[in-house]
Amino acid sequence: MSTVFSELPTVRYEGPSSTNPFAFRWYDAQRVVLGKTLAEHLRPAVCYWHSFCWGGQDPFALGGPLFDRPWFSGAPLAAAQLKLDNAFDFFRRLGLPFWCFHDRDVAPEGATLSESNALLDAVLERAARQMQDSGVRLLWGTANLFSHPRYMSGAATNPDPEVFAYAAAQVKHAIEWTHRLGGANYVLWGGREGYESLLNTDLKRELDQYGRFLAAVVEHKHKIGFTGTILIEPKPQEPTKHQYDYDSATVDGFLRRYGLQGEVKLNLEVNHATLAGHSFEHEVATAAALGLLGSIDANRGDEQLGWDTDQFPNNHVQLVPAMLEIIRHGGLGQGGMNFDAKVRRQSIDPEDLLIGHIGGIDTLARAFLCAAELQASGELERAVEQRYAGWQGELGQAILGGASLETLAQRVQAQDLSPQPRSGRQERLENLVNRFV
Amino acid sequence: MSTVFSELPTVRYEGPSSTNPFAFRWYDAQRVVLGKTLAEHLRPAVCYWHSFCWGGQDPFALGGPLFDRPWFSGAPLAAAQLKLDNAFDFFRRLGLPFWCFHDRDVAPEGATLSESNALLDAVLERAARQMQDSGVRLLWGTANLFSHPRYMSGAATNPDPEVFAYAAAQVKHAIEWTHRLGGANYVLWGGREGYESLLNTDLKRELDQYGRFLAAVVEHKHKIGFTGTILIEPKPQEPTKHQYDYDSATVDGFLRRYGLQGEVKLNLEVNHATLAGHSFEHEVATAAALGLLGSIDANRGDEQLGWDTDQFPNNHVQLVPAMLEIIRHGGLGQGGMNFDAKVRRQSIDPEDLLIGHIGGIDTLARAFLCAAELQASGELERAVEQRYAGWQGELGQAILGGASLETLAQRVQAQDLSPQPRSGRQERLENLVNRFV
Amino acid sequence: MSTVFSELPTVRYEGPSSTNPFAFRWYDAQRVVLGKTLAEHLRPAVCYWHSFCWGGQDPFALGGPLFDRPWFSGAPLAAAQLKLDNAFDFFRRLGLPFWCFHDRDVAPEGATLSESNALLDAVLERAARQMQDSGVRLLWGTANLFSHPRYMSGAATNPDPEVFAYAAAQVKHAIEWTHRLGGANYVLWGGREGYESLLNTDLKRELDQYGRFLAAVVEHKHKIGFTGTILIEPKPQEPTKHQYDYDSATVDGFLRRYGLQGEVKLNLEVNHATLAGHSFEHEVATAAALGLLGSIDANRGDEQLGWDTDQFPNNHVQLVPAMLEIIRHGGLGQGGMNFDAKVRRQSIDPEDLLIGHIGGIDTLARAFLCAAELQASGELERAVEQRYAGWQGELGQAILGGASLETLAQRVQAQDLSPQPRSGRQERLENLVNRFV
Amino acid sequence: MSTVFSELPTVRYEGPSSTNPFAFRWYDAQRVVLGKTLAEHLRPAVCYWHSFCWGGQDPFALGGPLFDRPWFSGAPLAAAQLKLDNAFDFFRRLGLPFWCFHDRDVAPEGATLSESNALLDAVLERAARQMQDSGVRLLWGTANLFSHPRYMSGAATNPDPEVFAYAAAQVKHAIEWTHRLGGANYVLWGGREGYESLLNTDLKRELDQYGRFLAAVVEHKHKIGFTGTILIEPKPQEPTKHQYDYDSATVDGFLRRYGLQGEVKLNLEVNHATLAGHSFEHEVATAAALGLLGSIDANRGDEQLGWDTDQFPNNHVQLVPAMLEIIRHGGLGQGGMNFDAKVRRQSIDPEDLLIGHIGGIDTLARAFLCAAELQASGELERAVEQRYAGWQGELGQAILGGASLETLAQRVQAQDLSPQPRSGRQERLENLVNRFV
Repeated sequence: MSTVFSELPTVRYEGPSSTNPFAFRWYDAQRVVLGKTLAEHLRPAVCYWHSFCWGGQDPFALGGPLFDRPWFSGAPLAAAQLKLDNAFDFFRRLGLPFWCFHDRDVAPEGATLSESNALLDAVLERAARQMQDSGVRLLWGTANLFSHPRYMSGAATNPDPEVFAYAAAQVKHAIEWTHRLGGANYVLWGGREGYESLLNTDLKRELDQYGRFLAAVVEHKHKIGFTGTILIEPKPQEPTKHQYDYDSATVDGFLRRYGLQGEVKLNLEVNHATLAGHSFEHEVATAAALGLLGSIDANRGDEQLGWDTDQFPNNHVQLVPAMLEIIRHGGLGQGGMNFDAKVRRQSIDPEDLLIGHIGGIDTLARAFLCAAELQASGELERAVEQRYAGWQGELGQAILGGASLETLAQRVQAQDLSPQPRSGRQERLENLVNRFV
Repeated sequence: MSTVFSELPTVRYEGPSSTNPFAFRWYDAQRVVLGKTLAEHLRPAVCYWHSFCWGGQDPFALGGPLFDRPWFSGAPLAAAQLKLDNAFDFFRRLGLPFWCFHDRDVAPEGATLSESNALLDAVLERAARQMQDSGVRLLWGTANLFSHPRYMSGAATNPDPEVFAYAAAQVKHAIEWTHRLGGANYVLWGGREGYESLLNTDLKRELDQYGRFLAAVVEHKHKIGFTGTILIEPKPQEPTKHQYDYDSATVDGFLRRYGLQGEVKLNLEVNHATLAGHSFEHEVATAAALGLLGSIDANRGDEQLGWDTDQFPNNHVQLVPAMLEIIRHGGLGQGGMNFDAKVRRQSIDPEDLLIGHIGGIDTLARAFLCAAELQASGELERAVEQRYAGWQGELGQAILGGASLETLAQRVQAQDLSPQPRSGRQERLENLVNRFV
Repeated sequence: MSTVFSELPTVRYEGPSSTNPFAFRWYDAQRVVLGKTLAEHLRPAVCYWHSFCWGGQDPFALGGPLFDRPWFSGAPLAAAQLKLDNAFDFFRRLGLPFWCFHDRDVAPEGATLSESNALLDAVLERAARQMQDSGVRLLWGTANLFSHPRYMSGAATNPDPEVFAYAAAQVKHAIEWTHRLGGANYVLWGGREGYESLLNTDLKRELDQYGRFLAAVVEHKHKIGFTGTILIEPKPQEPTKHQYDYDSATVDGFLRRYGLQGEVKLNLEVNHATLAGHSFEHEVATAAALGLLGSIDANRGDEQLGWDTDQFPNNHVQLVPAMLEIIRHGGLGQGGMNFDAKVRRQSIDPEDLLIGHIGGIDTLARAFLCAAELQASGELERAVEQRYAGWQGELGQAILGGASLETLAQRVQAQDLSPQPRSGRQERLENLVNRFV
Repeated sequence: MSTVFSELPTVRYEGPSSTNPFAFRWYDAQRVVLGKTLAEHLRPAVCYWHSFCWGGQDPFALGGPLFDRPWFSGAPLAAAQLKLDNAFDFFRRLGLPFWCFHDRDVAPEGATLSESNALLDAVLERAARQMQDSGVRLLWGTANLFSHPRYMSGAATNPDPEVFAYAAAQVKHAIEWTHRLGGANYVLWGGREGYESLLNTDLKRELDQYGRFLAAVVEHKHKIGFTGTILIEPKPQEPTKHQYDYDSATVDGFLRRYGLQGEVKLNLEVNHATLAGHSFEHEVATAAALGLLGSIDANRGDEQLGWDTDQFPNNHVQLVPAMLEIIRHGGLGQGGMNFDAKVRRQSIDPEDLLIGHIGGIDTLARAFLCAAELQASGELERAVEQRYAGWQGELGQAILGGASLETLAQRVQAQDLSPQPRSGRQERLENLVNRFV
């Protein structure tokens, strides 16, 4: 079968000195580090949405797609099947172990829910065969609850309960397919679960609706025996002015309020972290500290732009701190690293798509290798342990054991405590990290 | 007694047409609205820190203060008493019902904790008399756990447990004085409870330390019979790169993790909200929805600047949405509105300080009056209720009652539901608000 | 003729106490202030692009439009004519004196330039008749050099000179039509004149191309006898990462480098100012100081969002400083105030569009009236003059006349000068402004 | 002589595999690349202000310095001499070729200008000897026109002409000393040349004052025969709300308006670039394209913080694009790379200061080496040339030669031109760069 990628080579690892633009320089999938292969650590995935559905549109070029892809025209179902075949051809050439999808990305919307479900069934039956043939697995599935006009005011948080019901039905079908395709996780990104204006919004009510929705998804997961992880993908805003899953800490509070801790983890995206005013490593460290570290959407934002640019990562030094947090936490488990990234709209050639992915995966791999070596040295861990060593002592243990203000005040006065500042040695540790990049 | 304010008049309400720069045009303290006086609704307070301790320093003019105030030189205790007398003279001329203090603002630091406590005692004894004489009450007290070098790496979250103990002792004394002075609340602002770099930080450990600290404060409050509210003041960053009390939603999660919900509320600052990427009304609405609305630090940021500019509010239209959320929620209870605001550093004359406060309180009063009238009209409430009316119906109630994805999917298919988008009417509601400003 | 607006009323001025959502409360077009009518001061215009061409699409809802407008389907030319008729019906109901267009907004793109020109001719012939019948005039015309794929890498600054030529041809036709329709100005917004990455960009070369393009437009204007003003619309980024017309000061330097000062002015947009890190009043004051104040794109951004939200202005207090700068500068001349604003995408009803415009124009009118009254009082002008009074003295004049460092140093030492700081009185002036809002 | 650095080693280059925290791993000063030594390319300098004058103060820890340095107390002149001796000891241990100073950093302010000048003379006489003994040269000198209260409302742009005169006298002395010490450049950073509020500001007048000031400095430079470059250091804001030297493009327009092009270049700071909404490489590329590239203030900002954090650079990958622009432009000439960087305030030990500089210079050196190798490969240059190749053809030359809109329109129609988009290949070029980092 001929695809737009037919003339592109299959990508192989050739090492750092390779000058072949179609080779990996760092991603040696089978290389064993810290007891597992790189592929097992990273579990990288291609994102269907950005790579095969987006056509280069931006808010100043509405209308048809800019990219010349044969599946952007023609009868919807046939086009969807053509797109799928092209995607799997791409997956094979790139050689990553996973892919991810939204329901409405892989198959068109029908006139009714039943029709939409049937369309999805048709395409995903074919996907199942492609997965079997190619060995490419599913990192996660999800339902698109944000593109269709019915969701313009939210899905679970819509002022109209019929929309909630419709979204519930759509998620039911998507999670069941995710289960059937052996998906390792199921993702919810609440792109319209937020508000444009508080003037027309009942915040408390919408949060309650959202809590109920998420609980229903968790209940259904257990009912059908799906053992993948339910993941919420935080994002602070865009498309809405404010999105309820603002960041890791916000979702933690939300899960606790609705009794869902232990049931749901996070799918963290680099560019969503930075839009929320956080470094990516902050979001990873926070999620890890709160027991919520699930999976990663790997991309990068533009430091000068205030929207989600979804670029392929290309600075490994910047990613080392986040990789370090992942390693310290024991890895991503059944999560992975999905490229929620798209080529720039001027990168119109099919080869640009392949090259963008190669650079992205190489950046992830290189960052991981640096972080692994740093971690293996033990130097950073020791420095941190030493800094907090006092907390192993009697005073530290007494405090954590529940000493009162009164007890502590007596102690300060009795012993005339006057603790002196000690250097945080930040620059020394930054230089230490740079020995490994 | 002569103060730097001696030649300034006592401020009176003269109504909107007054051209007297030393008169209130909107803050008619005794005017009754929605069943209470304006003073009772707003409970406005003067902030000691910005108004009497800051001398116009900024990072490019380190060294002595720019403002020529007699209490910036001389023997520390005498200077502190002089500052206090000047402050109360100012309070009297301005006529607001409340003030607020940090321990190290009112009294100097001594060589030991005992000395510092004694210095604080000396000044606050005098403050107690001044409060009695003037009728000015205490909205809240707090301890400064961020200026002294010992706190450079945090107070509760310091890597050194002795610093935790020292902070505990300092808070004990400050909260006991707050109790004795009849303070309505006690505030904790964790200006150094955060990190500069994740490389030298054990996030999980620091959060646990912080949780324990807050629990100890709550325990002590109950022990001494203090009935004021414990308030956390969220701020996302500055001075640290990242502060643990990032925003309302983050603190909600924190309180739940450490079993402190119901014990602690929030002191929300306008400029802290905007630094966290939120509108102020978002933070108010969120706190209200989560049961955490405590008190307000009234100021404004600069929309073009990325730090805490702490300016006096001067755009009442911008504040109406937040006032509306406060009114809808039933008001601030024993909270109030403290001016965490300072005059610009070029405003070096004592009269500038009075004029800054007059403009600020007038802006708050005007915004409140507009919001009260809007609320009284019922038009906005009705529009919101109508928007969510479907949730009162059978489907809505079934969903909130726990309908499963399966039930809902069957219903969508059985009834061939196809919910249609309905206008959010945002511009209409914005215009409605403008009828009241 | 029936339009989607047929059932909406014609908007009239009813005064501040009106509760009619379809009435103006502040925009009394014929009210005379500072010697001219409000309509003559503001010269407000409806923007074709946002109001009739945008269908509610956003980056998460690509595909067809969300808004149900009959001209979004059907044969292109017939749809364009239908859209035009609807637009003029809207203009009549709203009663503003001006409209604005992009060539590709009013008419579809053809297969060749000649076809596109013919399509534009057909629609603009009809527009000419509609203008005559309705009395609605043209504030400005422009060419869309950013939507079509050929412009993806820039128009004038494209790496391919054929694209420059194509853009030149398109502008020629658009400016000639603007001339024929009696347009008061011609606008250039360089939405793709910038870069995505410096790696593939020759900055110097692109600036030279752009300078030549602008010069050619100016030459053509004179050749055809068009007496309108050529306006550049600054924007810092979006869609590109960096746009060459970043802000007022940047365009000033650009015009000087390419010898175009005196030939081109600025079309300033509120939301573009804020994206560039400036207040809107800063951009107005800067343009005025540099002799570049041309026209205004009236909208507002969202202070929490990092992209161009293009909302209708609704806070008159925030606009007073900019209006004041415009008044001080002697007004906008043949410029005006175009609504580069769109309703929120949930505002799907035709009446939302009318209501959005009503709120916007009322906000502009109210801000203008406040600023006019403030200016008429003379209080602010006097305060500023007094602040700089020293510069009228001998020393000030000597300095401006060219005194050397040496002369001045001698003077400081001879007279032992030790200038003392004087209060900037910012809060007093802010309160003064608030007397007029 | 004993200094606080006495126990620290002298820093040597030991190569990438060194684990010695007091060794350079990349900065091999004498290594020859592209025809010059690394030291000659980078011309790195230590900044007196941050390294020896700042004591760890921040807006939440006003009062005395946090850092325990002996020169922060004692008699002013003796302390200044002690500070100088410590600084030169540090310079020697670090081994960079240059230093930089502000007048009020090296010597205290006296009661009168004459006294201040005498104090400066005393300290700089000693500095001259230290420079001779150590071989450390002066990259630039400058006058501090922002710390003293007299400058609170600006120096050149002050509403009081006496302040202008005072500033002129101060600059005269500072530039003469810079000349005498063989300084390669003289810098002006207009930290207070801006405004806090437009309400009390006459923008046009202040710009004219500033233009006159700069002209006087240029005149004096020529008069005394100083052959160093006059540099303006752009910064968009902080301490003021808006600073007139906003960014490179703004200064270009300013210089042209006041006839100063060719006389003044730019001192670009990384963190100032990012505060202005630009990447650092953008500012370098813009300055180079406009003929204004002078010198560099090397530091980094924090991507999540909205103020000038002045951190030591530590991500070489991020700096490669800017280094590439510098290399393409032919280097910095008599400019250099000054560390406008300070250690974090928790880095209180003297060794932290040394380690911070080591990390910073290694990062610059590594970035330069990567960029030099990339440039030497010619691959990137070729890709860019190829992209714009069409402009060498007949059409391109005709356009740049002045073809009119009319000619071009005829050509498009006659030849039925329909230029097709060509891939910008951004990801391919990003991957190419990553082969060299």
